[in-house]
Amino acid sequence: MIAVKLLITSALLLSVDCYIVDPGPKVIATKGEVWPKPQLQQNYDSYFIVQPQIFEFRIIWDGYQKGRDNFDSSSNIYYKKLWLSDDNYLGYLSTLNVSLHGPCVEDEYPSFSMSEEYTLVVTDRTVELSSNTTWGILRGLETFSQLIYRGDDTITLRINSTVIMDYPRFSHRGLLLDTARHYIPMDKILTTLDAMVYNKMNVFHWHIVDDQSFPYVSKKFPELSEKGAYTNAMVYSPSDIKEVIEYARIRGIRVLPEFDTPGHTRSWGVARPELLTECYSDGYKTGQLGPLDPTKNDSYSFLQDLFQEIGEVFPDEYIHLGGDEVDFDCWESNPDITAFMEKHNITGQYAELESLYIQQLINIVDELNSKSIVWEEVFVNGVVLPNDTLVHVWKGGWEVTIFDVTATGRPALLSACWYLDHLDSDGDWEKFYSCDPYGFFGTDEQKKLVLGGEACMWSEVVNEYNVISRVWPRASAAAEKLWSSENVTDVTDAAKRLEEHTCRMNARGIGAQPPNAAGYCL
Amino acid sequence: MIAVKLLITSALLLSVDCYIVDPGPKVIATKGEVWPKPQLQQNYDSYFIVQPQIFEFRIIWDGYQKGRDNFDSSSNIYYKKLWLSDDNYLGYLSTLNVSLHGPCVEDEYPSFSMSEEYTLVVTDRTVELSSNTTWGILRGLETFSQLIYRGDDTITLRINSTVIMDYPRFSHRGLLLDTARHYIPMDKILTTLDAMVYNKMNVFHWHIVDDQSFPYVSKKFPELSEKGAYTNAMVYSPSDIKEVIEYARIRGIRVLPEFDTPGHTRSWGVARPELLTECYSDGYKTGQLGPLDPTKNDSYSFLQDLFQEIGEVFPDEYIHLGGDEVDFDCWESNPDITAFMEKHNITGQYAELESLYIQQLINIVDELNSKSIVWEEVFVNGVVLPNDTLVHVWKGGWEVTIFDVTATGRPALLSACWYLDHLDSDGDWEKFYSCDPYGFFGTDEQKKLVLGGEACMWSEVVNEYNVISRVWPRASAAAEKLWSSENVTDVTDAAKRLEEHTCRMNARGIGAQPPNAAGYCL
Repeated sequence: MIAVKLLITSALLLSVDCYIVDPGPKVIATKGEVWPKPQLQQNYDSYFIVQPQIFEFRIIWDGYQKGRDNFDSSSNIYYKKLWLSDDNYLGYLSTLNVSLHGPCVEDEYPSFSMSEEYTLVVTDRTVELSSNTTWGILRGLETFSQLIYRGDDTITLRINSTVIMDYPRFSHRGLLLDTARHYIPMDKILTTLDAMVYNKMNVFHWHIVDDQSFPYVSKKFPELSEKGAYTNAMVYSPSDIKEVIEYARIRGIRVLPEFDTPGHTRSWGVARPELLTECYSDGYKTGQLGPLDPTKNDSYSFLQDLFQEIGEVFPDEYIHLGGDEVDFDCWESNPDITAFMEKHNITGQYAELESLYIQQLINIVDELNSKSIVWEEVFVNGVVLPNDTLVHVWKGGWEVTIFDVTATGRPALLSACWYLDHLDSDGDWEKFYSCDPYGFFGTDEQKKLVLGGEACMWSEVVNEYNVISRVWPRASAAAEKLWSSENVTDVTDAAKRLEEHTCRMNARGIGAQPPNAAGYCL
Repeated sequence: MIAVKLLITSALLLSVDCYIVDPGPKVIATKGEVWPKPQLQQNYDSYFIVQPQIFEFRIIWDGYQKGRDNFDSSSNIYYKKLWLSDDNYLGYLSTLNVSLHGPCVEDEYPSFSMSEEYTLVVTDRTVELSSNTTWGILRGLETFSQLIYRGDDTITLRINSTVIMDYPRFSHRGLLLDTARHYIPMDKILTTLDAMVYNKMNVFHWHIVDDQSFPYVSKKFPELSEKGAYTNAMVYSPSDIKEVIEYARIRGIRVLPEFDTPGHTRSWGVARPELLTECYSDGYKTGQLGPLDPTKNDSYSFLQDLFQEIGEVFPDEYIHLGGDEVDFDCWESNPDITAFMEKHNITGQYAELESLYIQQLINIVDELNSKSIVWEEVFVNGVVLPNDTLVHVWKGGWEVTIFDVTATGRPALLSACWYLDHLDSDGDWEKFYSCDPYGFFGTDEQKKLVLGGEACMWSEVVNEYNVISRVWPRASAAAEKLWSSENVTDVTDAAKRLEEHTCRMNARGIGAQPPNAAGYCL
């Protein structure tokens, strides 16, 4: 009873001296927390002060020259960032030993099978960053840069003692950008790649053409963009594409091109109407053109030439073939297609017709030594697929689809949870954060077949002015679900870290919108 | 029968020669259409070609010097815009006669009662723009600038013959910007004012402070922002505010300040905790502070001083007093407030307590010769209001509230339809466009009491990076509902004009997002 009274009295005293007015943001940012959260991190309260003027990168090299070239161009990004921080602070100094142990001979471009594992030990004045690959070093440098924070004195840069062993949960951590519904200029694509590496995303899925426009400048078929792009200026030239690929490469990001067929190809038909199906009404041609015509041999030789070029232009081992949302009405109306289907004993089975088409396309791509990714309809419609074709699941009810895909032993990618064009009024990253790619009933074997996922920025109502703020930091939620441990699910903790991470992105020139209601960045 | 056959045959022939592949945007932009749509416009197919090099503004002047000063600074905006267009085209030339007929002695600042009416006649090589006020001339110049479009040759600038008599449907056409949940830097505020004038909006409702931060730098009480702003840099100094007011003035935009009380004041309490209510729990102070304490005389003398300053800083005749979302819990817990209410015979009636407060505040403002605007709760709670206090309706079920407000003979503003923080996945301007301020059952007399409305950009998840693209062109929908005739309701037509208007805003440096699915701006 006395204790209670004392408690109340001290509460009373406290309340007289200390008002709690509680203005400001609801979510207070963390300091020096890493996004996405490392797999294993042991944190200590002790810290070092970093003095950029005398801080040293020391590169310890076990690899070969090729890897070294990669690393030299990549690490410049981080040198610059750290040195830019502030010239006016005081304090201790430190060294970062960068140790690359593995060989890098075949590792010029990032790939699905690259290792991104690294360890980072900050327990001494000399920080140890080590990895077997340049890609791991890159991820570790990103982590190191995020560990540094400004002390409460707002002057010193600090880093807490910490030991990190880190690697991605999924190998394929992508962002799809649609550059066909609205043209996205080059500078915004490069900014997007910057932001991706800050979030340890490693696949730029370039949905480069669609019904609305064909901005890809083909060397073999320049007429496609000359006639099918919105304007002559709204195109991606071979040198633009080369720049994107190189900019992505030195950041450890793959560039995955998508040329979606047989639907979503209206813009192809401006220059090459003969590729598309002639639609009929009551037995007469309407003049309208529909999806690619799967019955014409000429179409396949065109596709062979085009995809050969695509395989040469884009170094990634995968090509995304699309295959979504094929409208069968026009095919159904066309008497030549009907005759073709009779001949092939698939009368009335348009999914079968699509299968015939996609199988031929996959064979073409296969012969070019590329692997295929297809949207889920291709699987659902029963197309016979090579074993290594990835099925990209994007529709509602994804838990069932991904179960079915993996039950047949086939690898899958998940995007259904991460459609960035679906908006909510509040900072809706929590919705994206609540989705786990293993969130379906399936065996461990099935889950191992989920190779990752992608956040998708379809650009119907997105242009150069809102693309960056709409993607970031909402895509960061997907990035953490794809990198961090399955056990990282605490939304309250994530909110604080994402507040810091968003300010960090803002400070690095990414015009991200706020993640949480009210707040500010220092 | 023969006719039918012929028809089919020509359709067949047509279909062979002319493929319809239909790529590109779903909505094709108009050319030279005005947004918001003028009240009366007679269009002709004939057109003139405008040659910027030799095109002449000729100012015919009936007004006095003061009006001339206004006009000189304002019209520079338009001179510059036209001249910047393009130096390389060919064609005819023209003259714009600008005729200001009325006197402007008392018209230094735009006001609620200003006339914005103008006529614009483009039927001869000499265009005639006339108005009785500089504000009307400004609106007419905006219209003139929008009538000019690029011909199909993409080189010539053209203007169609047209006769326009135009005036706003509502006098108060506002945009609320919340600069407290997130700080919005000056350049984005000025850009917002630019965009407002392109949409003929005339009230910048500056929701300058709130619970989260107090960025307004008071001359009398500098401690409010020193302690209540997010940081020392995230403030609006007296010279910043002066700049905003002047930038708005020469664009015919009023700056309406809001200092919301007695709720939404947590940030006030950082420097001045004694203004706020001390909350209790079980008879003991919790240390928490609630809304302004309406029982203390000192609070009112503080408010008198503060609002006197506000009246001096902001030249507009109106001050927005807020009054929304007052949380009564803290008031209910406080024994001093309970005693005060007993003494005033309003025990348990917290709406009455709020009324006492607001009445005193309105009296203060009244004595300072300012008029008041309050959020709807003040009216709903039964506060006795001066006849000219405007009630700002913002909640769902607005049709009932606005009926009730106007049924008592009181003027109203509508914002309930135009909350820009409420997002839909598609370009959701149609939702804003479907709302009409007369869309309630009421007499003509009641409808006359609706003086206009405001689109509201609350900034919980809005910062400098997404504020412009989130507001525009969505607020343009509200702008047209507030300017144009009640009969302008055709969404299909509006979509085409808004496509053009958005590209026009983009070209003028407003980073508006796309209004419609897919497309591009030349």
